[in-house]
Amino acid sequence: MHARSRLAAVFVVLTVLALPLRPSGEPLSWVDAYREVSARLIGEALGSTFAWNRLAYMTDTFGHRLAGSEGLTRTIAWAVEEMKRDGLDNVRTDTVLVPHWVRGSERADIVEPVRHALAMLGLGNSVGTPAGGVQAEIVPVRNFEELEAKGRAVVAGKIVFYNVPWTGYGPTVQYRGAGASRAAALGAVGVLIRSVGLPGLRTPHTGALNYAPDVPQIPAAAVALEDADRLQRLHDAYGRVVVRLQMDAKMLPDAESANVIGEVVGREHPEQIVVLGCHIDSWDVGTGAMDDGGGCVAVWDVLRIVKKLGLRPRRTLRAVLFTNEENGLRGGLAYAEHHRDELPHHVLMIESDGGPFRPLGFGFSGSETARAQVREIARLLAGIGATRVGPSGGGADIGPSVRAGSIPSMSPEVDGAAYFTLHHTNADTVDKIDPVDMGRHVAALAVMSYVVADMPTRLGR
Amino acid sequence: MHARSRLAAVFVVLTVLALPLRPSGEPLSWVDAYREVSARLIGEALGSTFAWNRLAYMTDTFGHRLAGSEGLTRTIAWAVEEMKRDGLDNVRTDTVLVPHWVRGSERADIVEPVRHALAMLGLGNSVGTPAGGVQAEIVPVRNFEELEAKGRAVVAGKIVFYNVPWTGYGPTVQYRGAGASRAAALGAVGVLIRSVGLPGLRTPHTGALNYAPDVPQIPAAAVALEDADRLQRLHDAYGRVVVRLQMDAKMLPDAESANVIGEVVGREHPEQIVVLGCHIDSWDVGTGAMDDGGGCVAVWDVLRIVKKLGLRPRRTLRAVLFTNEENGLRGGLAYAEHHRDELPHHVLMIESDGGPFRPLGFGFSGSETARAQVREIARLLAGIGATRVGPSGGGADIGPSVRAGSIPSMSPEVDGAAYFTLHHTNADTVDKIDPVDMGRHVAALAVMSYVVADMPTRLGR
Repeated sequence: MHARSRLAAVFVVLTVLALPLRPSGEPLSWVDAYREVSARLIGEALGSTFAWNRLAYMTDTFGHRLAGSEGLTRTIAWAVEEMKRDGLDNVRTDTVLVPHWVRGSERADIVEPVRHALAMLGLGNSVGTPAGGVQAEIVPVRNFEELEAKGRAVVAGKIVFYNVPWTGYGPTVQYRGAGASRAAALGAVGVLIRSVGLPGLRTPHTGALNYAPDVPQIPAAAVALEDADRLQRLHDAYGRVVVRLQMDAKMLPDAESANVIGEVVGREHPEQIVVLGCHIDSWDVGTGAMDDGGGCVAVWDVLRIVKKLGLRPRRTLRAVLFTNEENGLRGGLAYAEHHRDELPHHVLMIESDGGPFRPLGFGFSGSETARAQVREIARLLAGIGATRVGPSGGGADIGPSVRAGSIPSMSPEVDGAAYFTLHHTNADTVDKIDPVDMGRHVAALAVMSYVVADMPTRLGR
Repeated sequence: MHARSRLAAVFVVLTVLALPLRPSGEPLSWVDAYREVSARLIGEALGSTFAWNRLAYMTDTFGHRLAGSEGLTRTIAWAVEEMKRDGLDNVRTDTVLVPHWVRGSERADIVEPVRHALAMLGLGNSVGTPAGGVQAEIVPVRNFEELEAKGRAVVAGKIVFYNVPWTGYGPTVQYRGAGASRAAALGAVGVLIRSVGLPGLRTPHTGALNYAPDVPQIPAAAVALEDADRLQRLHDAYGRVVVRLQMDAKMLPDAESANVIGEVVGREHPEQIVVLGCHIDSWDVGTGAMDDGGGCVAVWDVLRIVKKLGLRPRRTLRAVLFTNEENGLRGGLAYAEHHRDELPHHVLMIESDGGPFRPLGFGFSGSETARAQVREIARLLAGIGATRVGPSGGGADIGPSVRAGSIPSMSPEVDGAAYFTLHHTNADTVDKIDPVDMGRHVAALAVMSYVVADMPTRLGR
């Protein structure tokens, strides 16, 4: 090795030694440039309980926000005003027509062999009963196979009772969605379902049903798990149980509603957009604090904090409070249509609809290149314990846009132990959200979305 | 030492060696003679889920059992028939007149500054409101001191809202019992209380109020913890909250009811009695499975099992299903009066009214002699983990007799973590009771009561 080579070798070694290192000894990555701004975002999110207080004010004041309700209309108007007061850019509404289902009064009673009221909630979108109610023997089934095996001879004129044990949301919720029409096709006059949720305190869970075309529309309601067990035991003990179901529910003409949009416009690529989504509607029980008022206040709070800190990322941050997720998805569908031309410029869509609980990280759907970048960003969340990047992420409202535009999608992964206890129940109220956990939720969303909006090169597709 | 002394010493040593020993090496006590019968009692209690099945049948069929209700009357008639079928001795009813309070329809709504329904339950014994309800501003207070400090000038014409945080049943329940009259004395027109219980799922807790003499009777209701928090937040945010309370509640003339009694008559001292008590009435929400249908089925099951095993202890075992514990204690008072002459012969009174949950042992009130005996008996319960003997035991229904006759008293100590979540709520249903734990509860009661009824000398006084 002559002198020149030796000099070159020494230079290489010195260069490597001179590379900035993390305290851990690892070399710095591009994401470390965001440590300081991340600390500011986290600090602001955890420096007060602003988000929780806003959620409490919103739900205390306006109550539930079912599509077509006064509560939803008032909440939307208030959110627009508040977003402006927060200094967000381009605050606006995007009009959407939504279904207008009204529950009315309702009840269900066992009338034979004994008389007892059932703890129940009519299913969303259900038709009502005739004025006197429908009264019929129940036919308990555990699944659709049992229903089909019984056939028209057994089912016609009866109330089908889907006593389906919880095996997770996906496999169980199909009975809420499709159970009424499957039973009506065999001549049933009504449907009861075991509530789709975890054990509660005599707590029925509502949620949407979807009638199939070309089948009579029959009324359907969910009973609490306790009442489902009681119906089953009475049926097993006495052989015959008769129930009367009375529901005034009706579907009115579509009502006007809106998606609410607020932005922090990007300083270099304002046309490139990172969406932070949620749905501002809720069911008409409880106040929809978890599902999804809290998600909306959280994503909105990201933009409030970015503004408050005087930050402006390279790309645009856009909060979208979608309307009518619960019984129509009209907000999500309208966004995909109204913003079709913009979708190629959507860098990432995030939706928070799993409750503003303690974040553990994010689920992510996108390319491997993007996943590696997201993983790197998530390292900035070690201090709040939210570094996990799960195999898939998304949300109902962003779904139509994500599919139409092949857009990377993401959702917070949270400690959601309480989710299916509260989901679509009267107990979905703000006290179920911990103010500190909600702050961490905001912090995780803020760091992730800000860095994606500001990173030197656009997130991989 | 001469030969004779040596012989005597050897004899003593041999005698000591010949004393029966436990496997542990401890000497046997008098209670070990009961090991075999205890094993049979425990085996029978845990050999099936008979008690739970009976409780499910009873609560599914008859529903709640409020004093004066058809459900209570039917349950009492059924229990008498079933006790006879079980082969109990001297099955009979002891007529008792009970208060007949009827809830009727009821609701409470926030009407200013926003309009929302409250999750509520009227308090038992409350008067109703005038037909249109009472509508007034609320005055939130945290305790009686705050109420008194506000005085008539602030309170008159208002609805007092006792937003008293849970600090245990004793200190909190006084606001349910006495809050209405304390507020009425200052001119209030109605009362709301924060439910006396642990956090639930929008679950109000009812329970008795007691009007003081010489004060106007005003209507009172409990709101769920979530609604109490919301009322407080709205009051703090807006300064003024108006509520409308509508209750049809009324007190009808006293109704006829009864304590139900069944026995296993003692073979040597039939006049000496070990009482196993519970209360057969419940509140008119849920089905009173925990409070106290389960206690009744459990104590009754002790006698069923003793009979089934062909056992007859030296003294009499007597199950007493007291009526009207919840809003009058008329059953307990009547028993003490009707059985006054028998009280000196009451060896022990046990009451199970803490839910038929997993037993940990017993609380006991009595002499130190008796306590030592009870401790010894509890050792027979090591195999089901119920050996604890706590410093005091008793129950509301046995209280008047225990006090009148200075009778030793006892109650199961249980894993009651769920008790004040379910207490006096719509969620007090049979599914909250684990069938295996209920079997253990029966087993513990069976061994304790049987041995006390059969032990060679009467339990110490």
